[in-house]
Amino acid sequence: MSGPIPVFSQVQEAHRRISKYIHRTPVLSSSSIDSILGCELLFKCENFQKVGAFKFRGACNAVFSLSDEEAMKGVGTHSSGNHAAALALAARMRGIKSYIVMPDNSPDIKKKAVAGYGAEITYCEPTLEARESTMEKVIEQTGANFIHPYNFDRIICGQATAAKELLEDYPDLQIVMAPVGGGGLLSGTAISSKSINPNIKVIAAEPSGADDAYRSFKSGQLIPSTNPKTIADGLLTSLGDLTLEIILKHVDDILRVEEETIVKAMRMIYERMKIIVEPSSAVPLAAIMENPHLFQHKKTGIILSGGNVDLDKLPFTAH
Amino acid sequence: MSGPIPVFSQVQEAHRRISKYIHRTPVLSSSSIDSILGCELLFKCENFQKVGAFKFRGACNAVFSLSDEEAMKGVGTHSSGNHAAALALAARMRGIKSYIVMPDNSPDIKKKAVAGYGAEITYCEPTLEARESTMEKVIEQTGANFIHPYNFDRIICGQATAAKELLEDYPDLQIVMAPVGGGGLLSGTAISSKSINPNIKVIAAEPSGADDAYRSFKSGQLIPSTNPKTIADGLLTSLGDLTLEIILKHVDDILRVEEETIVKAMRMIYERMKIIVEPSSAVPLAAIMENPHLFQHKKTGIILSGGNVDLDKLPFTAH
Repeated sequence: MSGPIPVFSQVQEAHRRISKYIHRTPVLSSSSIDSILGCELLFKCENFQKVGAFKFRGACNAVFSLSDEEAMKGVGTHSSGNHAAALALAARMRGIKSYIVMPDNSPDIKKKAVAGYGAEITYCEPTLEARESTMEKVIEQTGANFIHPYNFDRIICGQATAAKELLEDYPDLQIVMAPVGGGGLLSGTAISSKSINPNIKVIAAEPSGADDAYRSFKSGQLIPSTNPKTIADGLLTSLGDLTLEIILKHVDDILRVEEETIVKAMRMIYERMKIIVEPSSAVPLAAIMENPHLFQHKKTGIILSGGNVDLDKLPFTAH
Repeated sequence: MSGPIPVFSQVQEAHRRISKYIHRTPVLSSSSIDSILGCELLFKCENFQKVGAFKFRGACNAVFSLSDEEAMKGVGTHSSGNHAAALALAARMRGIKSYIVMPDNSPDIKKKAVAGYGAEITYCEPTLEARESTMEKVIEQTGANFIHPYNFDRIICGQATAAKELLEDYPDLQIVMAPVGGGGLLSGTAISSKSINPNIKVIAAEPSGADDAYRSFKSGQLIPSTNPKTIADGLLTSLGDLTLEIILKHVDDILRVEEETIVKAMRMIYERMKIIVEPSSAVPLAAIMENPHLFQHKKTGIILSGGNVDLDKLPFTAH
């Protein structure tokens, strides 16, 4: 299912395919953050993307690159998060069915969001095993096309369009950063960035409590997380074989960050930029805060991955 | 001090004067809010303005329209909020002194912000009387130019540039909305909107707990608030004679809204638009939620006044 390493012409094709469905999100900057950190940062706001996350780009590309015959049977995935909502909305836009397998302990608000986009939901036990076996059954019954959330070339090419847009707007960036979970966003970001300008450094950021990508990157082989823990709930997943291969080829470094710094970075984005991001989005800024010397006087682009956060549970406390 | 009713050519002049100092803020929309409320809304994001509020426009115009001789003596105001920070930053940009009188019980974060922009702060008792008498003394000693936060033509012309930009971007708006406190933003918004297109309706929104503008508008005479109470802390002030005169001439209606609706509207903006606004900014959307029939199928522009909110005290509770 994972397919060969995608090349930039496939990203360009994906961009042409999805551009009428996605938002071309704005790029924001903050002179106060720049002066605090002594660098120049450009933030690509995928929190403003449809369904509130970059995931819509990949889902859209996967759905709209199906042939009519394939599409007739619908699409399916297992996810409790942004990928499920993104796939359901993309399917609705194409007028086809989506089948989503969700753990039965998913937050009500996520169940409602996915149902609201018209998906047919099958609930299962909250284990990876139950998710995969339930998914298999659903695929068997429906013939739906399984759309993996990240270890899949069409998904990666969709996610890659965020960095492509960023570099169209700011061709003189010296560094591009993205958070890394399953690696779909990071590998897409790396393909676009290195293809547009091979001299750009691509630096990923990952929570220390879920550092499988760091360990896989350093050892050159897949070392999935066991029991990862981080406030950045979008980054709990482990790399796949395809995303690791791309990351080994195109990414310059992966920096690990502490939980405390993630919360500080998130608060800085809220207070200085006046935008809502989910904790995962704050991980690259946290890496800059922990390693300022690497970014001093450099022009750095950061992909803000999304803005879906529970407002009742913001991690800020009086200080 | 208040001066005659400003005309649109003064707004255009103000815009030319301040455009290199201010941000031209983006206009955002949300298809999900539109479909929930059955109307088409365009949000002018002054929460992204410098110092986090539209107040910087007016302060900038007041500071940069002083002659060199006047400017030499600096500027002063009494304020615990956005106007103080805005004036201090505008003064620093012009390289002149600012003298700010603040109530000694102002939040530390605001004291620091104003001091951070280089203002000379004089603290006083937290009463209007103490503020005014302390201000008088400071003006007497320094010869600084007193810059009233809203009842002042140069301030109004500066605030008017937000609606001017909004209508340059969206000339086909049928309604323009702003919240009303002292009336600087509303009167500026009304001058720009009616000058650009006399058929546009200008509708203000005001918390029921601080409804002096509503009562003054309906009776035709100044009825200042006594003991106003609202979560929209930017809207506690009462109209001045100049702002009332402009509002009577150019504003079509003022809608009052309940506190509960303000919090709901604020949450809707956070969740659906992924941006941070202060409660005052949510008041126009609250008015639409309470009076949907007035806005059905209409294209309405809303000035989001600012984004300075204490993240530790967001009014959201689990639901």
